[in-house]
Amino acid sequence: MSYNILTVSREFGSGGHSIAKEVAEKLGIPYYDREIVDKIAVETGFSPEFIVEESEYAKSRSIFAYAFSFKGTPGVMGGLSPWDYLWTVQKKVILEVAEKGPCVIIGRCADYILKDRDDVLNVFIHADKEYRAQRIVALYGETDKPPLKRLEEKDSKRGYHYRHFTDKIWGMSQNYHLSLDSHVVGEQKCVDLIVDIMKK
Amino acid sequence: MSYNILTVSREFGSGGHSIAKEVAEKLGIPYYDREIVDKIAVETGFSPEFIVEESEYAKSRSIFAYAFSFKGTPGVMGGLSPWDYLWTVQKKVILEVAEKGPCVIIGRCADYILKDRDDVLNVFIHADKEYRAQRIVALYGETDKPPLKRLEEKDSKRGYHYRHFTDKIWGMSQNYHLSLDSHVVGEQKCVDLIVDIMKK
Repeated sequence: MSYNILTVSREFGSGGHSIAKEVAEKLGIPYYDREIVDKIAVETGFSPEFIVEESEYAKSRSIFAYAFSFKGTPGVMGGLSPWDYLWTVQKKVILEVAEKGPCVIIGRCADYILKDRDDVLNVFIHADKEYRAQRIVALYGETDKPPLKRLEEKDSKRGYHYRHFTDKIWGMSQNYHLSLDSHVVGEQKCVDLIVDIMKK
Repeated sequence: MSYNILTVSREFGSGGHSIAKEVAEKLGIPYYDREIVDKIAVETGFSPEFIVEESEYAKSRSIFAYAFSFKGTPGVMGGLSPWDYLWTVQKKVILEVAEKGPCVIIGRCADYILKDRDDVLNVFIHADKEYRAQRIVALYGETDKPPLKRLEEKDSKRGYHYRHFTDKIWGMSQNYHLSLDSHVVGEQKCVDLIVDIMKK
């Protein structure tokens, strides 16, 4: 295949996760999501829960707030905030994983982290809010928070995190080779199209 | 077909124009680009050159600058600036064209103007600058201005125009159902994919 690595960025509830997984299965290559969290946990000592939340959803935190909350004792993090330290390790882990061979990597700014390679296909999956709201309720059940609010919060955090670490706008077409509305295109068609281009 | 109207927005030199035209031919439906300019010219009395330039590339102009350049005599434009008047007629013409039946409309914020219809497929075509630079030199020849500068100027004006009249960011994946890198996907594959979804 001319592309060895696929990165899939996605709006919450758009089906990007299952599309990425099915593409990996069809191509017979590994799929990295939770595995990246585990690798980062080993390197940093951070809990998997902290990594899951902070490796895609970092909120706006000022150095000022950090200085007070951590009492200025950076330890092994070499003077970096926990979030900058996490970003450094996340980059290292993603670069290492990509070095190992063909694979699919979901989220975590992998499109940006791997920008210097020329064998990476970057895909963004999105869909209208009504479709995604129904999908997350079917998949994850109801919570106290209305599904539209859950979507907006997750998307907003992913967007902030991407902007903060890459200085680019999350979801801009130009960051990806394909941006697909999974509701309109259909999840199966998204899978087939991506597989087709990866094999080209 | 479940979609009657296709709108194609595109980066300059990305091949969006020829992709849109071929889709229209394959579907046997009309393709509107120059025809929209002619209709606007009849309604407004503006020259086709002014319309071509201003219906996609409006530059930032302050009301202050307008007041001085037009001496405050709005005439038939009902107190609107020429650019706001052009936008009003452009919206009217695009809504009328879409009412007539299935068609392909290129650029001119048609995705936004037709946002209240549910039978419109919105596509954005883009590509890396090197590919587009080679393409515009092959298609339109060299000029005094370097091709990369020509691309950047056109894209920047299209982006400003879109933002000014729609309050949205030109090129954001969520504004379109499909955003395709024509260099990576291939022009023919873009055509086939769009035709396939239009027919779905």
